[in-house]
Amino acid sequence: MKIKLTVEYDGTNYHGWQIQQNCESIQAVLERALATFLRTHTRVAAAGRTDAGVHAFGQVATFVTENEYKPHRICRALNALTPPDITIKEVESVPDSFDPRRDACGRVYEYHILNRPTPSPFYRNRAWHLHERLNVAPMREAISCLTGEHDFTSFRAGDCDAAHPIRKVFQTSLEQRGELLMFSIEATAFLRHMVRNIVGTLVEVGTGRRSVEEFRQLLELKERSQAGDTAPPHGLYLVKVNY
Amino acid sequence: MKIKLTVEYDGTNYHGWQIQQNCESIQAVLERALATFLRTHTRVAAAGRTDAGVHAFGQVATFVTENEYKPHRICRALNALTPPDITIKEVESVPDSFDPRRDACGRVYEYHILNRPTPSPFYRNRAWHLHERLNVAPMREAISCLTGEHDFTSFRAGDCDAAHPIRKVFQTSLEQRGELLMFSIEATAFLRHMVRNIVGTLVEVGTGRRSVEEFRQLLELKERSQAGDTAPPHGLYLVKVNY
Repeated sequence: MKIKLTVEYDGTNYHGWQIQQNCESIQAVLERALATFLRTHTRVAAAGRTDAGVHAFGQVATFVTENEYKPHRICRALNALTPPDITIKEVESVPDSFDPRRDACGRVYEYHILNRPTPSPFYRNRAWHLHERLNVAPMREAISCLTGEHDFTSFRAGDCDAAHPIRKVFQTSLEQRGELLMFSIEATAFLRHMVRNIVGTLVEVGTGRRSVEEFRQLLELKERSQAGDTAPPHGLYLVKVNY
Repeated sequence: MKIKLTVEYDGTNYHGWQIQQNCESIQAVLERALATFLRTHTRVAAAGRTDAGVHAFGQVATFVTENEYKPHRICRALNALTPPDITIKEVESVPDSFDPRRDACGRVYEYHILNRPTPSPFYRNRAWHLHERLNVAPMREAISCLTGEHDFTSFRAGDCDAAHPIRKVFQTSLEQRGELLMFSIEATAFLRHMVRNIVGTLVEVGTGRRSVEEFRQLLELKERSQAGDTAPPHGLYLVKVNY
């Protein structure tokens, strides 16, 4: 029986999704919980790896078991066996052929920026704090160029191991809620650090250090060295995986 | 020179605003920071005491100093000397006669409820998690009776030391934002545990265990024993103090 989990986590205290030696990861916590619950080592596969400090509202993961537990029973057991910074939101039974990574047709990420003079106790590790005033209108203008199929080489990390840099962006938005700016982007898949590199460049448009036109040209340049700094991981959220 | 501070804090790790022996408080942290900065013991007065675990977006506090530091310099110094769960948002110079408690003409509190089947890593210590589905419409109907001048004995804590139980409520609202319910109430002042007792009773209206009519009658009954349980402190926020 294959089980699909929808997992929410605060990534602050983890070195990302993937199991690594000598540091804690979301995957390791889930596999330990499953080992306790199912009494056998159980491998967990995810829709995508998130980096250290990155959060998720809806990561998707699967595992295979010979036990015929009801989904709600698995949900209760796993939530009892995981720390409070990891929550299993949904559990459902899926066909054996289901592959959380390959079957995903889209992923939604959000990046949160707290834009005010002082940092906030409530957004510590949860949003990128920028005290310099950001002008939202040109940032909104800039992101419109991202929609569609593009070569995202300019926003790709140096150590990205993807086969090619072409990705299809379905939609982007930039919502302002008081002092919080929320950038949302939905695409087929993402290159390594792609969202954080886009955001790092986008804030330069917000401060006026880069024009909307320069942001647009950067996409065509296909040159990483011309992009802004990589935004820190703690503002990034894997919101949803679509199938 | 009298200085007014607007302070934001995550109350999770504090035994409330007020200095107490053998436990950490917001007031103690601020007074230690001031002692370091001003090199003399400096007393801090607040608009109101918040209980252990209660948060603030805009607590107001004052202190008196003979130093003539500019407000922005005090702000920077205090933020450097306080931990990240306490932020000084604003600093301004006020007349010596200014009293943060007596001069306040209104206080706004919010109470946050996370209403969904599973708890969330992001609202741990930040909202009251209730998995039972709440019906918002009757809750909205119920709170309308709170507006105006009333005897709030039914919602008053047993150990409340206020001179009388009459308070004037200017407005209330109940906003739903996805899985989050935000109850907001503005009044001249509040009795001890008044907001938490109102919320504890209000959720019974949301679950159907108490009718809108019963909620209304309770206010007239002036009988604490008939109210619901006191809602936990970690969903409560002192939002603003008006002068």
